[in-house]
Amino acid sequence: MSTATTRTDTPLAGGDLGAALLAAFEGPHHERRAAGRAVFPSDDMLRDPALDLDQARAWTLDRLHALVAAGIGQAIVGVEQATADTQIQSLIDFETVAYGDLSVAIKSGVQHGLYGGAIAGLGTPEHHQRYLADALSLRTLGCFAMTERGHGSDVASLETTISYDPDAGEFVVHSPHRSSTKTYIGSAAAHGRMATVFGQLVVDGVERGVHCILVPLRDADGNPLPGVSIGDNGHKGGLLGVDNGTIAFDHVRVPRAMLLDRFGSVDEQGRYISSIENPNRRFFTMLGALVRGRICIGGGAAIAARRALSIATRYAERRTQFRHAHSDEESPLLDYLAHQRKLLPAIARAYALGFAQNDLIDAYGTVSSDSNHDPRAQRALETLAAGLKVMNTDFANSAIQTCREACGGAGYMSENQLTQLRADTDVFATFEGDNTVLLQLVAKGVLTDYRDVWGGLGRLGLVQASARMVGSAVIERTGAGLLAERLASTARRRGDSAAFYDRGWHAWMFEERERHSIDSLARRMRSADSNSFDQVNAMQDHVLFVARAHMERVMLDSFIAGIENCPEGAARQTLEELCTLFALTSLESDAGWFLAHNRMSDTRAKALRRQINQLCGDLRPRATALVEGFGIPAEWLGSAMLDG
Amino acid sequence: MSTATTRTDTPLAGGDLGAALLAAFEGPHHERRAAGRAVFPSDDMLRDPALDLDQARAWTLDRLHALVAAGIGQAIVGVEQATADTQIQSLIDFETVAYGDLSVAIKSGVQHGLYGGAIAGLGTPEHHQRYLADALSLRTLGCFAMTERGHGSDVASLETTISYDPDAGEFVVHSPHRSSTKTYIGSAAAHGRMATVFGQLVVDGVERGVHCILVPLRDADGNPLPGVSIGDNGHKGGLLGVDNGTIAFDHVRVPRAMLLDRFGSVDEQGRYISSIENPNRRFFTMLGALVRGRICIGGGAAIAARRALSIATRYAERRTQFRHAHSDEESPLLDYLAHQRKLLPAIARAYALGFAQNDLIDAYGTVSSDSNHDPRAQRALETLAAGLKVMNTDFANSAIQTCREACGGAGYMSENQLTQLRADTDVFATFEGDNTVLLQLVAKGVLTDYRDVWGGLGRLGLVQASARMVGSAVIERTGAGLLAERLASTARRRGDSAAFYDRGWHAWMFEERERHSIDSLARRMRSADSNSFDQVNAMQDHVLFVARAHMERVMLDSFIAGIENCPEGAARQTLEELCTLFALTSLESDAGWFLAHNRMSDTRAKALRRQINQLCGDLRPRATALVEGFGIPAEWLGSAMLDG
Repeated sequence: MSTATTRTDTPLAGGDLGAALLAAFEGPHHERRAAGRAVFPSDDMLRDPALDLDQARAWTLDRLHALVAAGIGQAIVGVEQATADTQIQSLIDFETVAYGDLSVAIKSGVQHGLYGGAIAGLGTPEHHQRYLADALSLRTLGCFAMTERGHGSDVASLETTISYDPDAGEFVVHSPHRSSTKTYIGSAAAHGRMATVFGQLVVDGVERGVHCILVPLRDADGNPLPGVSIGDNGHKGGLLGVDNGTIAFDHVRVPRAMLLDRFGSVDEQGRYISSIENPNRRFFTMLGALVRGRICIGGGAAIAARRALSIATRYAERRTQFRHAHSDEESPLLDYLAHQRKLLPAIARAYALGFAQNDLIDAYGTVSSDSNHDPRAQRALETLAAGLKVMNTDFANSAIQTCREACGGAGYMSENQLTQLRADTDVFATFEGDNTVLLQLVAKGVLTDYRDVWGGLGRLGLVQASARMVGSAVIERTGAGLLAERLASTARRRGDSAAFYDRGWHAWMFEERERHSIDSLARRMRSADSNSFDQVNAMQDHVLFVARAHMERVMLDSFIAGIENCPEGAARQTLEELCTLFALTSLESDAGWFLAHNRMSDTRAKALRRQINQLCGDLRPRATALVEGFGIPAEWLGSAMLDG
Repeated sequence: MSTATTRTDTPLAGGDLGAALLAAFEGPHHERRAAGRAVFPSDDMLRDPALDLDQARAWTLDRLHALVAAGIGQAIVGVEQATADTQIQSLIDFETVAYGDLSVAIKSGVQHGLYGGAIAGLGTPEHHQRYLADALSLRTLGCFAMTERGHGSDVASLETTISYDPDAGEFVVHSPHRSSTKTYIGSAAAHGRMATVFGQLVVDGVERGVHCILVPLRDADGNPLPGVSIGDNGHKGGLLGVDNGTIAFDHVRVPRAMLLDRFGSVDEQGRYISSIENPNRRFFTMLGALVRGRICIGGGAAIAARRALSIATRYAERRTQFRHAHSDEESPLLDYLAHQRKLLPAIARAYALGFAQNDLIDAYGTVSSDSNHDPRAQRALETLAAGLKVMNTDFANSAIQTCREACGGAGYMSENQLTQLRADTDVFATFEGDNTVLLQLVAKGVLTDYRDVWGGLGRLGLVQASARMVGSAVIERTGAGLLAERLASTARRRGDSAAFYDRGWHAWMFEERERHSIDSLARRMRSADSNSFDQVNAMQDHVLFVARAHMERVMLDSFIAGIENCPEGAARQTLEELCTLFALTSLESDAGWFLAHNRMSDTRAKALRRQINQLCGDLRPRATALVEGFGIPAEWLGSAMLDG
């Protein structure tokens, strides 16, 4: 019988390499993130899973106060005060919060990002002055009341009405049907005092489309105000600390000044005024002002995935199982190829996503603080935000699950944190935009430069109409993508003889997958009847493939640029290997496509698996350093199985 | 604005077709399953997710009593009384229980299947007479104490000792190290009075390998007995109604008669006696006697997946979202291709798994009641049980997750049941055998006919040694596979020109994937050094591929045989389409392999996607009938969003 199965003498320290990886990985936002970690209140940062709903909600609210006391979440400002600095800080704040319990993160996101963000993004300077400070300080706890029972993804079809009563100079907020009830609204069930409510604005009998208005929900004692009916969504699959609830309005009257009317207002004479003529463009401009939420959710999911990968990797270094042939020594789990293949490609992908998120954060800082509103840059930002939200949240769910299983029975114990992470991030795939719907927006963004054609065609028609505009796929690259583009064209000239680790070959292949799938989709769309549901519907899987191919290419571009910014040395060399592992894993998962489209030879496709195995083996001794590069202090992981 | 978004007039009834599908799907076990449903106590069958740990455990125990009152779980008998009938009934009982809360199912599995099953499988007629009735009636609540902190998958390395003291005529059960503590043991934390404890038998200073002994844990008042230390695993990622705990023994004395000594005993003179000379063969014979647990877990996971697919499909029929172009009508989610691709291939795979499980159940009935113990049939049974446990549990986890996401925010609300199903089945992937480890056992089973070479080589070495025995891959088929074999050889003679729906082509391709991967693995193994960890480890992903390729082929074989047993008519036609959808989806997921190995042309590979889309569209109008074929009464789904 062998005895010890938990190594205590394993060299867990990546040390210098981990620190260098972290600096490179966090890139332009490294100092800001480090500052966030320095002030993050890390005592009692993980929720006791045994708390019941009421206890969990109370604990979460307490933690939210602790965050505010630490100054986290205070960077939400109106557009008139926005600088790249404030805008980026608001994103980093959410990442910082995601080091702790994710109910707290989401509660903070609802309060600061969504409730505060709606005031900041859709309101005027008067609204900012009047409501923002109370939102940020938690003097007014707020809700973001968009989703209804009947419509979630299809925001344009919301049923709540916001009707102007010119005699009283007030708006009447009303839920006409059962399906109009707001639902899944964070902070509604217990704590919310005020809500930013989305509904159809009706002025003088004319529907003006979806607008947002502030509506008080509860009095100072917490009782619902007249006309406001509040329900409790009760127990959920996760995020038990967030008090999600339902809200229905029965002709609730609100002063005219509470309409968040940056993009569309009603004057004292009861006339509707908007600087944006086209109702569809107005709608999408308003939604666009809320893009921060998606960026935060993607960023938060990324942190959750890194926490899980940090836990599972550190455990796989310690936990041994099965004796060697003819030896009494047991191997750490991470010595097994099957285990390496579970964790190391996931780590590589986490790096890819992180570099892409850095670029998205930069883009948000620039675009959202630019007073010369550039619609093209805004569109590109929204596409990237939607796409990275999908890639990050899908990845988090699958990677955390992989980590859970990689830790066996221990992984299932709540004290080891993996199941909570999994349960909490689950919903990230469908809130702030359902991932399947968002991928269709990404494809639309890829297919067109013309937002203006985006009207009246419904979800599928709009993609098709966009495709008519383009002759053939143009893969546009800015900053981060320029180096990848250069590498790809060199490789293309050289042909299929490149080495597996040749970055140009990767960039070329990723580009081919994107370009060819766009071209063929655009061709199909041009010959289809956009009024035929069946014909448009038949392309939906192709649309999703295009979106994913695009995002993979964007991630590789960012990874390549990120490496370029890393000084020569061990960290850079490690990043090169991680990038190759990411690229080869992506190519392997679509090997069928590359072969069927003659982009890869049989020999090369067959060798992919061997190359990936080799890379896993090469990186394995540095595994601890790789997760140190994620920047999550080991003592914050809170996983009992890593103690002692 | 559109109004209603939930159709109440949708024709949800599949009616006759659903009933015919169910009869075919449940096949030889249809009547027995229907009888189980008829007696299943369906009142209060789903746990209130808001119950705290203590409440959940008490509720679960109550439900267990209700099951016993209904006669469910009573079919566990010693080998001397076993008939195909008793053995099959014990499996169907677990499936029936899985219609309700899965904590109850697992608690029942621990009590009847594991605790009772260890007594039945490892004990003698005296043990059966003395302990089995109390186990089945719940007079003695029991634990199955195998896993330790230090060793889970590697059962042979358990550290607990069972040492014979000849002077006292007693065994001394002891946990020598912290890593020897039993952990994750169901019913240990609160309810268990007795345990079947696995440990190293030591007789007269000689280690005799892992054996199992009955050890009393608590007195009549529920207090731990002297020398027994019990801990609580506390909150888990799911299965909150199961009181998992830890058990450590400090020189606990147990009478000699409590050793479950069917395969190895100690006589009054203190001599060790076993009918099985080879210690490795003895070890695996004992584990083999416990194969029922794996079959049950696979079957339970299958039921959970069907429950989720039933919920998500019925919701996708009702829930509408997004208006058509130039129309005010909204489409049900299931009209969208992307949604069809989420649910319909999963439904097809659930059918494939169900047919394979039917064959596994038959094999268990035959083998486990056969008094002329046939080691070859036993080995085949164990391989199939391990493989289907993996395929069923992996599928359940991914399918339930897909269903959760397909229901959007509603899917995340506990009242709709999907998140509980997901949380509860999560651990199915790693208990009763870690899926990655089990796949390696499957590959070993596929590679060899000689259990006897299975000694002393460790997990990887044994696979290699086995491979040396075979010259080239022989895919052996019995009952269910004969028809598939005939179809495949006809198709092989005809070549690549077969239609996409040609069953022979599917069978041929599945066979090619399996045969070629076995051949190449065996070749690699013959040239590797079995003492080199690195060389053997480098093949681990290949080993996993072989196991999966084998299981896919087995599932197709069973599906084909299942269709053959279905009378001509609409149900059979529907099963043909489902089988094609299953086959094409499996081929698509390995398209890279088929192309790189020249088993499929580019044109054919590219057309796969279109064929799958077409099949989804064809099956879509019958979606409700397809899930009716799963046999779960709609009123048992307990999903609030399906009401009204």
